[in-house]
Amino acid sequence: MQRIEVTLVRTKVYELLKEMILNHELKLGEKLNVRELSEKLGISFTPVRDALLQLASEGLVKVVPRVGFFVVEVNDKYVNEIIETRLMIETFCLDKYFDEISASPELVMIKNEIEEVKRTHDRKLFDDSDERLHKLIVRSSGNETMVQMYEKLWDKIDLVRHLNERYVVSNEEHKEIVENILAGDKRRAIESLISHLRNVESETIRNLPLFERTKK
Amino acid sequence: MQRIEVTLVRTKVYELLKEMILNHELKLGEKLNVRELSEKLGISFTPVRDALLQLASEGLVKVVPRVGFFVVEVNDKYVNEIIETRLMIETFCLDKYFDEISASPELVMIKNEIEEVKRTHDRKLFDDSDERLHKLIVRSSGNETMVQMYEKLWDKIDLVRHLNERYVVSNEEHKEIVENILAGDKRRAIESLISHLRNVESETIRNLPLFERTKK
Repeated sequence: MQRIEVTLVRTKVYELLKEMILNHELKLGEKLNVRELSEKLGISFTPVRDALLQLASEGLVKVVPRVGFFVVEVNDKYVNEIIETRLMIETFCLDKYFDEISASPELVMIKNEIEEVKRTHDRKLFDDSDERLHKLIVRSSGNETMVQMYEKLWDKIDLVRHLNERYVVSNEEHKEIVENILAGDKRRAIESLISHLRNVESETIRNLPLFERTKK
Repeated sequence: MQRIEVTLVRTKVYELLKEMILNHELKLGEKLNVRELSEKLGISFTPVRDALLQLASEGLVKVVPRVGFFVVEVNDKYVNEIIETRLMIETFCLDKYFDEISASPELVMIKNEIEEVKRTHDRKLFDDSDERLHKLIVRSSGNETMVQMYEKLWDKIDLVRHLNERYVVSNEEHKEIVENILAGDKRRAIESLISHLRNVESETIRNLPLFERTKK
């Protein structure tokens, strides 16, 4: 039993810290004090350290030897890199697996979600349809190696996707992408995907200073 | 000191097991007996388990709960997936960063290595220039996110790249790619890269049965 409890605590701490980083309760670049976090959570150092090491392996936390743990810092280059990588993978898949994507029953469900977000302005629902749409494009490749790659990338996407407040506009752009796919217009679908990601990129970079440890 | 020694043993065991998997001393799909490996290496279970878990996180070892560890199994789909992912990343970078690649001083060094492999048929030297050429193409993007992605993929590439015996032919194909890049002919450079990877794919799949645990 001991062992299971340790695993559970570690997993819980990991999930809690991850959420705090992703919703920017812990600011970008902020130092993460293991002792302080342990006391706050009422647990020992070890599971906190383990969770931070796991988050480091996923690129959300930075380890500076002999100094400590920090929430990863996001700068323009970081955003550019993620968007370039997304553009490469998503347009490759949308182009090559267009028929699989347009025939997917999930696409219709996503379209309905988009309509609901339009009515309700529900950010949580938008986040869900955002993840589903972009992952559907990659998953339709059936290429497990590529899907795993994209899933890992998603952790980084997740870190920056709340750095813009354009989700109502993004929702409209998703609508356009989905409609182009459903209309069977591959060229316009790819164009609308590229322009969507470029818009996300520029607005995220514009908003970066608001989410940094110290405003510049 | 204790701690450092444990880390060193684990790293050594990890490197040793990785090499044994990559050079197919441990066959694809083979069961990895922790007790047996510990006895063979004259060390305790823990560093062996830790090394195997690390190899599992890299996709070289498969963990089957309550059964044990296995060298990953490679089938046609696995090879297809890796080549498709390589094609996506490498052609994207060769196309977008062609000028950076063709201006790289490393490319000339790789060209010399290729000439030497042609004379000496040195497989180790070929492996080196193989890795350098393909990684140069991706590194020239300057995109750390993409480079890390490709580095992780390389572990899987490494597992399958000795499943073909065409390195003398591959060396010739590398020569063609490098010459096209140096001549500034982007279109032909991309074409020769694609045809090289397609050749590797088909020959690797043809050779798969030779490296499996039980011949089919």
